[in-house]
Amino acid sequence: MKPGIPKGTRDFSAMEIAQRNYIFETIKSTFEKFGFQPIETPSFEKSATLMGKYGEEGDRLIFKILNSGDYLAKIDPQLLAEKNSKKLTPKISEKALRYDLTVPFARYVVQHLNDLVLPFKRYQIQPVWRADRPQKGRYREFYQCDADVVGSTSLWQEIEFIQLYDAVFNSLGLQHVTIKINNRKILAGIAEVIGEQDKLIDFTIALDKLDKIGKEGVVQELKNKGINEESIHKLNPLFSFEGSNNERIKHLEKLLENSEIGSKGVSELRFINEHIDAIGLETALLEPDVTLARGLNYYTGTILEVVANDVKIGSIGGGGRYDDLTGIFGLKNMSGMGISFGLDRIYYVLEELDLFNNIKQPKPDILFINFGNTEALYATKTIKKLRKYGIIAELYPDASKMKKQMGYANKRQISYVVLAGSSEIEQQQFTLKNMETGEQTVVNYDVLLKTVIK
Amino acid sequence: MKPGIPKGTRDFSAMEIAQRNYIFETIKSTFEKFGFQPIETPSFEKSATLMGKYGEEGDRLIFKILNSGDYLAKIDPQLLAEKNSKKLTPKISEKALRYDLTVPFARYVVQHLNDLVLPFKRYQIQPVWRADRPQKGRYREFYQCDADVVGSTSLWQEIEFIQLYDAVFNSLGLQHVTIKINNRKILAGIAEVIGEQDKLIDFTIALDKLDKIGKEGVVQELKNKGINEESIHKLNPLFSFEGSNNERIKHLEKLLENSEIGSKGVSELRFINEHIDAIGLETALLEPDVTLARGLNYYTGTILEVVANDVKIGSIGGGGRYDDLTGIFGLKNMSGMGISFGLDRIYYVLEELDLFNNIKQPKPDILFINFGNTEALYATKTIKKLRKYGIIAELYPDASKMKKQMGYANKRQISYVVLAGSSEIEQQQFTLKNMETGEQTVVNYDVLLKTVIK
Repeated sequence: MKPGIPKGTRDFSAMEIAQRNYIFETIKSTFEKFGFQPIETPSFEKSATLMGKYGEEGDRLIFKILNSGDYLAKIDPQLLAEKNSKKLTPKISEKALRYDLTVPFARYVVQHLNDLVLPFKRYQIQPVWRADRPQKGRYREFYQCDADVVGSTSLWQEIEFIQLYDAVFNSLGLQHVTIKINNRKILAGIAEVIGEQDKLIDFTIALDKLDKIGKEGVVQELKNKGINEESIHKLNPLFSFEGSNNERIKHLEKLLENSEIGSKGVSELRFINEHIDAIGLETALLEPDVTLARGLNYYTGTILEVVANDVKIGSIGGGGRYDDLTGIFGLKNMSGMGISFGLDRIYYVLEELDLFNNIKQPKPDILFINFGNTEALYATKTIKKLRKYGIIAELYPDASKMKKQMGYANKRQISYVVLAGSSEIEQQQFTLKNMETGEQTVVNYDVLLKTVIK
Repeated sequence: MKPGIPKGTRDFSAMEIAQRNYIFETIKSTFEKFGFQPIETPSFEKSATLMGKYGEEGDRLIFKILNSGDYLAKIDPQLLAEKNSKKLTPKISEKALRYDLTVPFARYVVQHLNDLVLPFKRYQIQPVWRADRPQKGRYREFYQCDADVVGSTSLWQEIEFIQLYDAVFNSLGLQHVTIKINNRKILAGIAEVIGEQDKLIDFTIALDKLDKIGKEGVVQELKNKGINEESIHKLNPLFSFEGSNNERIKHLEKLLENSEIGSKGVSELRFINEHIDAIGLETALLEPDVTLARGLNYYTGTILEVVANDVKIGSIGGGGRYDDLTGIFGLKNMSGMGISFGLDRIYYVLEELDLFNNIKQPKPDILFINFGNTEALYATKTIKKLRKYGIIAELYPDASKMKKQMGYANKRQISYVVLAGSSEIEQQQFTLKNMETGEQTVVNYDVLLKTVIK
């Protein structure tokens, strides 16, 4: 049997872990600097918690866990004879792997409401699983890094999250990111103004593709969806949505002046834009984009999406405001807002831009060559002392040939090697070899410590 | 629908996460200090990788993942009609959640052998899942923290791992731990000497219960297993296994002098004990225990188990030497040794002994009261500056009543609150309230920063 792992999953080496942890730690410490506190939820939830929350496509992509024991015992033979997988699944599977962090968060809020201080600011960095077709950059197991606030409708949350994106990407050295901003109310307003309220979803799905298929493509798709020429004509200003943020917002204001919901959306966008202007961002750019429509069914106000301008990979983060996330679990009127960071894409971008160059995997600072048990004991006593100073030190376990032991030191890129035989032991000294320069010196313990300590 | 989580799983709050991370970080940094490097493997493996590796009981406790899509489509209707869960499972499930970290590690070594430097020292801290009956301290999702070396038969590895246990528990402030040590060869030797080689497993299972059922109980169980009176009589010295480590080892040596394998085991034990004596442990105690038998089928040499003397909870760590771990994946002669830390039990012990008292969850250092948009903007600009110094600062998002905002500050145990209205803004100052003393002072930005910075 040739060993392998399931498609869409990955093993991670020490170097990859060091690089990934660097991203995790940057996000985590920024979340905390903004007052968020961590929670963790189980890898699997009751199926009833997850199913039906992500649409039909989502339900299909959720990994279901087979019940333990004799799961067929109580199944009606007739049901089995039907061979209907969809009907059988809920009878033989009661648990499923987390599909995202948002639904488990909503479940958490409702379940623990009595213990929470509102507004509740939580972050969560955990893996999720999706039975998606694996492709470049898309995995079946991947991490999400989410921050959400529930219990406040204040637009100052939007302002906080935009600053948070800016702070994280700036800390990662990723200076050319654009934070695109839209508002679900603006999308609803546009649909209203062109007289196609009932086609809001079709309309936004088409608009969302502007980047990929251009104006002509969008117009064609709108026609296919049964949106008439006159309506499409009214959309024209959106395609030439240019100028400064203020100019864009003014255009929108004019376009939506007869839509109450649309005007509300523009006024929210204006508030956020003006205040971000006043506060200033480190390096990110905030940019209104009326074609931005991600997660439409879910978001009720602001919609955000982040792209790295220097690397073509799609969004590296996204989020928005939702008015009724916990409603699915019976808790109404809990407005919130959240954003997410896409670890794998951020990793890809940092790698492409060579921004990992300072990240090092843990490796020994010093290796003691093993000449036999007497020498190994002398080495081990010294190693014990060095470790107290945080020095990563080890003894080569076997009294192998010199060449083999030195080869190990080279392959692990160890900076210092100690050779201590009977004469060194007698004089309580150490022959210390600097592996970079090849220089070899005989030193006592104090000099050894001083040389190796960081 | 009342929200809840599957039995045997847990949500973790910020405080619990801080406490758990303290344990993880202590273990992780000690692993690294000893030269181990991290790897991570996927949460689920191919079923073929896991099944059959943990015995029949293990196979039963592995969580299986249902195939995606129409998994029944190609199933023979006759097989379905049989209603045999065990036979159907491999047809409808090809993946399973990790049951431990050891088998995935063995798979990793064989799969990535060409990229590894031998001896390969890896650590791995990840959750595992078992469909065990949940009970106090036993969960269906829990973390394991493992360190293993493969590619060396040197007993210096044993000495390293004993020092590693000592270093971790000492760092955690857990000073009364006993590291019990035995050797599978000693157990084999005893079985040989009493003439019951073929009953080695029965014999060690009985012996392993000495703690719980006493000598009488063990003798009874041995009788039940068909071990004769004469053999049992020969075991007598084991029950009065007392004295210093050296004395115990001498007794064993005598007892096993006619068994080649037994004598080998005693000599290994003696080597380890003598060298640990010479090196010295920080606070842990090393203690030979011939009744220790954990994971017998798996270990081939040294067996270790750690108990906290002050808290009755069973072992908080264990491990041992194995000669053929990777053999199951076709790679022979790869001797290794590994140990594991039981996070949940260590957590329980630290909690019982009140050793978490310095652990704090992340919370804001300072909260700015929200008096309206003008004040919020003034606050946000200041917060932005404070965060650059690593200060956790936030604005209350809504211009709610003072009582509500102060209530939030109290519940989150925030140390400082800033009240800045129009007069403070005019003078570019801040009214700073120390929430512990109740003292309120008007300060400029520099004093504000100096007061709050850690």
